[in-house]
Amino acid sequence: MGRTSDARNKILTAAQSLIELRGYSALGVAEICKTAGVPKGSFYYFFESKEVLALAVIDEHWAAQQRDWDRILLGDQEPLQKLRQLFEETKAAQHAGQATCGSVAGCMFGNLTLEMSTQTEAIRLRLQQIFEAQVDMVEITILEALRRGDVVVADAREAARSVVAQLEGQVLLAKLYNNTSQLDALWLNCQALLGARSEQGAPAA
Amino acid sequence: MGRTSDARNKILTAAQSLIELRGYSALGVAEICKTAGVPKGSFYYFFESKEVLALAVIDEHWAAQQRDWDRILLGDQEPLQKLRQLFEETKAAQHAGQATCGSVAGCMFGNLTLEMSTQTEAIRLRLQQIFEAQVDMVEITILEALRRGDVVVADAREAARSVVAQLEGQVLLAKLYNNTSQLDALWLNCQALLGARSEQGAPAA
Repeated sequence: MGRTSDARNKILTAAQSLIELRGYSALGVAEICKTAGVPKGSFYYFFESKEVLALAVIDEHWAAQQRDWDRILLGDQEPLQKLRQLFEETKAAQHAGQATCGSVAGCMFGNLTLEMSTQTEAIRLRLQQIFEAQVDMVEITILEALRRGDVVVADAREAARSVVAQLEGQVLLAKLYNNTSQLDALWLNCQALLGARSEQGAPAA
Repeated sequence: MGRTSDARNKILTAAQSLIELRGYSALGVAEICKTAGVPKGSFYYFFESKEVLALAVIDEHWAAQQRDWDRILLGDQEPLQKLRQLFEETKAAQHAGQATCGSVAGCMFGNLTLEMSTQTEAIRLRLQQIFEAQVDMVEITILEALRRGDVVVADAREAARSVVAQLEGQVLLAKLYNNTSQLDALWLNCQALLGARSEQGAPAA
């Protein structure tokens, strides 16, 4: 009794919201168990260490986000419109998070990159894989736009990396100011970075 | 004896390198004092709390960085060349840090934003002021470029914010991959974001 996968899920859910709120380093196993409402023994039954738990939280979070990115970026819209939708849904998700917990949580992967990547090699490698996967998905969309003549880029992969970097940078500022309107700049900036023909014919920054 | 400003400086220096290496949350006062080689009593003589120390570390770091940004952005070069120099010196500084401590430390202000901004209001406000000051300085340079007809932007402040966001995002990726060559993209991306006439006449992404 007790050690059901339900307890595992409770620990994962508690850890995810605590990490989003306060980062990884500040958390202790006791606090995670208290928030999850499970005994400490359960924790070590499911997770060898806090690091193993962090990797599981990252994987769960990425699985959900990847489903969203796939739905948007592999959909039927024109490629640039897919990127626009990605930014709009990113803003909506940050906004919903802010409504729930009072502050813009930012990107969990960006947060953990800046907090953890010089400390825990396993976490750094996992985060690298996730960012590579994001760049892959954006690159495919840019290549699609290139074939249609919608954008002008010399190196689609570099351009994809810059779009992801801009996304992370703007989410960082949104978190700092606790204000998601920061994210409105993403679409215009993306058009500028990709040398896209702006629909409005206006300069894109 | 002992409680000289020398001890204060030792604590600040130790705290700065520990924060760059491992973030703020993971640090304890005892470890800071051990690294600084000062007794714990000295710590509380100079700093009321770890948060007060963190604010002092942030202020010292910004004072030094602001001197650099002033030297570059208030210099005699053409405005876009000033921004280019800012990116090149940012890369050089990250590279020097990597050579010293083995890993790209990233931007202390970005790191602390993602680690701390939802936890400590005093630190969040200080970081907001610093990012506003950075955006101010970049905005002045963009306005200078606008007057010369070197760039095409609808809103110089928004454009400045996007340049700073791109800088933070690329530094995040440089830290994640422990590779400063990531930062080579900054100049081309900045030209694209500002609708600048590329010297090479090549597309800017």
